[in-house]
Amino acid sequence: MAMNPETLLNAPPIRVVQDWSDKDTILYALGVGSEELDFVYEARLKALPTMAVVLGYPGFIWRNPQWGVDWTKVLHGEQSVVIHTPFPASGHFVGETRIARLMDKGADKGAIAIVERRITDGASLHYADVVATIFLRGDGGFGGSPDGAPVPHQTPADRAPDISVSLPTASNSAMIYRLSGDFNPLHIDPDIARAGGFDRPILHGLATYGVAGRALLSALVDDDPARIQRMDVRFSRPIEPGETIRTEIWIEGEGRAAFQSKSVERDVTVLSHGYCEFAV
Amino acid sequence: MAMNPETLLNAPPIRVVQDWSDKDTILYALGVGSEELDFVYEARLKALPTMAVVLGYPGFIWRNPQWGVDWTKVLHGEQSVVIHTPFPASGHFVGETRIARLMDKGADKGAIAIVERRITDGASLHYADVVATIFLRGDGGFGGSPDGAPVPHQTPADRAPDISVSLPTASNSAMIYRLSGDFNPLHIDPDIARAGGFDRPILHGLATYGVAGRALLSALVDDDPARIQRMDVRFSRPIEPGETIRTEIWIEGEGRAAFQSKSVERDVTVLSHGYCEFAV
Repeated sequence: MAMNPETLLNAPPIRVVQDWSDKDTILYALGVGSEELDFVYEARLKALPTMAVVLGYPGFIWRNPQWGVDWTKVLHGEQSVVIHTPFPASGHFVGETRIARLMDKGADKGAIAIVERRITDGASLHYADVVATIFLRGDGGFGGSPDGAPVPHQTPADRAPDISVSLPTASNSAMIYRLSGDFNPLHIDPDIARAGGFDRPILHGLATYGVAGRALLSALVDDDPARIQRMDVRFSRPIEPGETIRTEIWIEGEGRAAFQSKSVERDVTVLSHGYCEFAV
Repeated sequence: MAMNPETLLNAPPIRVVQDWSDKDTILYALGVGSEELDFVYEARLKALPTMAVVLGYPGFIWRNPQWGVDWTKVLHGEQSVVIHTPFPASGHFVGETRIARLMDKGADKGAIAIVERRITDGASLHYADVVATIFLRGDGGFGGSPDGAPVPHQTPADRAPDISVSLPTASNSAMIYRLSGDFNPLHIDPDIARAGGFDRPILHGLATYGVAGRALLSALVDDDPARIQRMDVRFSRPIEPGETIRTEIWIEGEGRAAFQSKSVERDVTVLSHGYCEFAV
């Protein structure tokens, strides 16, 4: 069965309502490796800005038979988070997810879906917009336009980064991170990982994203989460739990920075085209 | 206000009803340092036997003003778990906690409370009995008998242990463990730890107990949690998150073993008088 673009684009938003607790916020922070008391201790708790990626998260949506997507070929390509209002460590969160656009790169290359999630308090507060660029590798050639994908930010090629921050991950990082809602067995089950072409279970791309976010927090905004306003990345390669993530940051102007993240052990880029906006 | 022994002994059981999930069981296992897939992966999940200490747990009960206990002087001295029926990784658990006995060691030494918790499924299944020996250091001299405390098991002094198992803890161990229900700030807040006479936050005694339980599981019963039937210890000294715990085990007969646990870094005993019964 081929993908049905109209059904995807016209589907009603997937609504997720959550009563989020301090414990949920602490568990998220531990999953991205934080041991800062501001992020793991209820007496002075703040939410990490990257926690937006798990708020109102509908889970893996692509197995919907009405959509006809070859869900086994789905890859998470890019992630953007724009924060309009800093969100509390606990409270009522509503996520509304929709397929905003579909691009057609051809039968050989596949389709691209732009998935947007609006996070609110269910009333007047608009906390954040979370946008994922998803590669539907088995669903190209549906007759759509190839244009409209987000243009990724270029990191400077002509100069060294202004700041580098190295943060470790641990052998249990994916085991902790998955308790925030992404239970894909690829991140814990060695057999599933091998079937997917990996030697071992890989860390969630969004956990790496959270580690990079911690680097930006300390390097750019003195660990004040309310000052992070935007954070975009492309997922270029997976890392394994236990590797060290070095985030390289270029200041580009007032409240703007480019960044990328590397595996220190393998010296390969794992997050590329990073872009951050922050309050100065 | 002095402690009122009759009020404590005649109080109705404190009943805690829980719908326990796979996620709760995984979080407990991660808190005691396990990365074994049998204990952290929902597709093949088993409960660690030491998880009994958090099932039906009523929290810190000593601040009840009707009891008149000087709760600031309360110390957890010993712990016993007897498992009657191996419990599932998820399900309905009911804990009923009562003060079973009070001993009076005199006004200078304090009182001892035996706190018993019966864990069931709320119907016919009796899973476990959890017994804590609590030192009420400010409440001796109430006119009771000094006799009746459990007699701790002696570890052999005349021979080397038969098996030793070293297991690491991590700098975030207490941060993870506390999410299973013991949010005492002593285990995360440096100021509270210093006020309590410690250089740094200490690991929960029951987290150390869980690490020792993992050592017994691998050394005695081939990691089969259904074969652990009893596990008793005395808490002799605290450890800090990040230290390595070496558990020394003496086989004492068919299905019986003595054990103690040490901080490898400081070569001091942290759990003493350990006793384990298991199915052979």
